[in-house]
Amino acid sequence: MTREKLIEQIKQKQSFLCIGLDVNLSKIPKHLLETDDPIFEFNKAIIDATHHLAVAYKPNTAFYEAYGIEGWIALQKTITYLHNHYPEIFTIADAKRGDIGNTSGRYAKAFFENLAFDAITVAPYMGKDSVEPFLAYENKFTILLALTSNEGAFDFQTLQTEKEELYKKVLQTSQSWKNAHNLMYVIGATKASYFKEIRKLVPNSFLLVPGVGAQGGSLEEVCKYGMNKDTGLLINSSRGILYASGEKDFALKAKEEATKLQVAMQAILSAHSANK
Amino acid sequence: MTREKLIEQIKQKQSFLCIGLDVNLSKIPKHLLETDDPIFEFNKAIIDATHHLAVAYKPNTAFYEAYGIEGWIALQKTITYLHNHYPEIFTIADAKRGDIGNTSGRYAKAFFENLAFDAITVAPYMGKDSVEPFLAYENKFTILLALTSNEGAFDFQTLQTEKEELYKKVLQTSQSWKNAHNLMYVIGATKASYFKEIRKLVPNSFLLVPGVGAQGGSLEEVCKYGMNKDTGLLINSSRGILYASGEKDFALKAKEEATKLQVAMQAILSAHSANK
Repeated sequence: MTREKLIEQIKQKQSFLCIGLDVNLSKIPKHLLETDDPIFEFNKAIIDATHHLAVAYKPNTAFYEAYGIEGWIALQKTITYLHNHYPEIFTIADAKRGDIGNTSGRYAKAFFENLAFDAITVAPYMGKDSVEPFLAYENKFTILLALTSNEGAFDFQTLQTEKEELYKKVLQTSQSWKNAHNLMYVIGATKASYFKEIRKLVPNSFLLVPGVGAQGGSLEEVCKYGMNKDTGLLINSSRGILYASGEKDFALKAKEEATKLQVAMQAILSAHSANK
Repeated sequence: MTREKLIEQIKQKQSFLCIGLDVNLSKIPKHLLETDDPIFEFNKAIIDATHHLAVAYKPNTAFYEAYGIEGWIALQKTITYLHNHYPEIFTIADAKRGDIGNTSGRYAKAFFENLAFDAITVAPYMGKDSVEPFLAYENKFTILLALTSNEGAFDFQTLQTEKEELYKKVLQTSQSWKNAHNLMYVIGATKASYFKEIRKLVPNSFLLVPGVGAQGGSLEEVCKYGMNKDTGLLINSSRGILYASGEKDFALKAKEEATKLQVAMQAILSAHSANK
């Protein structure tokens, strides 16, 4: 998918919501466990109930790998369902991969060719040649971990290096890599005060923002400092939407939670465009 | 597997060789492509021919994910084959995973419980809470990326932070994490001169060392500076062994290459124990 199509979808739906499909069988409604493929059935119901409110879905591969082959089949069915029924949706494999060049190329094949995701999250630690095989794909997006939403982010990411903190170095260095216009970054919502500085370094990039909701980040704060002329934000919510109810009404409740976020986003988008 | 059993195996086999099972269907002998599961058949032949020369096998998940469901089935069959036929072997999932705590826990389940690997490689960028779910398993090993063998290692890993280079900070900080005696580190053989400094920081840890052979690292150099009283090294070779021949004699040729490394290791081990 092109960047332009993503922006168009944001305008049309008045939303920049990304829904994280992190399925845990111990948390989904019991009646689904009797179906042949509970993970897929759960995802399908959530997607059908929320697709008009969200612009992106983001399955995290850990939740599928935890169920072995069955998990991978469910992941494959989910992405195929999205492609067939909602081709406008931006799909993100939250896989946090990254390896030496030769090997990263195999991951790129797995996620961009076989599963045909639009984007994948990638860990920067191994540097340029570990990221470039992903960047080589046209109209596909590499979402580099920069400043993540977890407590451990302060172990290394905010370390002062020669000139700046490590995550800033990651932001700056990666801009000089091949096809860097296909780059996005993960920036945790739990660090809203950092967004102002981050926007100075990467004014145009889209930022994928986890941590709103369950992890305590504020939508308004993030938007205040992080939004740019193309919106430039994909705000992810996983648990808050997926597990709004553990009963048969789970899809309805998921829709209600997604609607709350979409309505808040619409208000922010209106105010933002009025201010321009 | 316990650390003691690994050390015992090294003494018995007079080898600290790890063989990377990075299977690429375009590189394996043509006659295997006619079998039902070429990836597994290739691995099985390599393992049968080399198991007495190596103490560890290390499938890199990228090479399996690139073949989708079939790849995962081949990975599962390979690890099961190792467990059933060669239970003394130390098994490493070269997966380079790492995510927020909750999610890393799902990866740990996938690789330590379902696939029952002894060890997994983990990326440190997301910090403590992203690594601890792996460390929580007894007699399982977390192998943290520290200084990798690729060119991109110099993009971030060797950056100077407040007191030291980033990879040294990773080595030091991680030692204070829970169950840190279950930690090993990836240190590329292409950086042999760094091993002296590294051993000052982590004198007792095992180091998993890729980059000998195809990537240009020297076994002797690495051992000179990196070996400790328990050997403390697992030297990985992948392409040099796997693709020594692309013909029907591939397993025999793989055995010959593995033997060369084992013989060199035996000589080094003898010299090392004579020097003690």
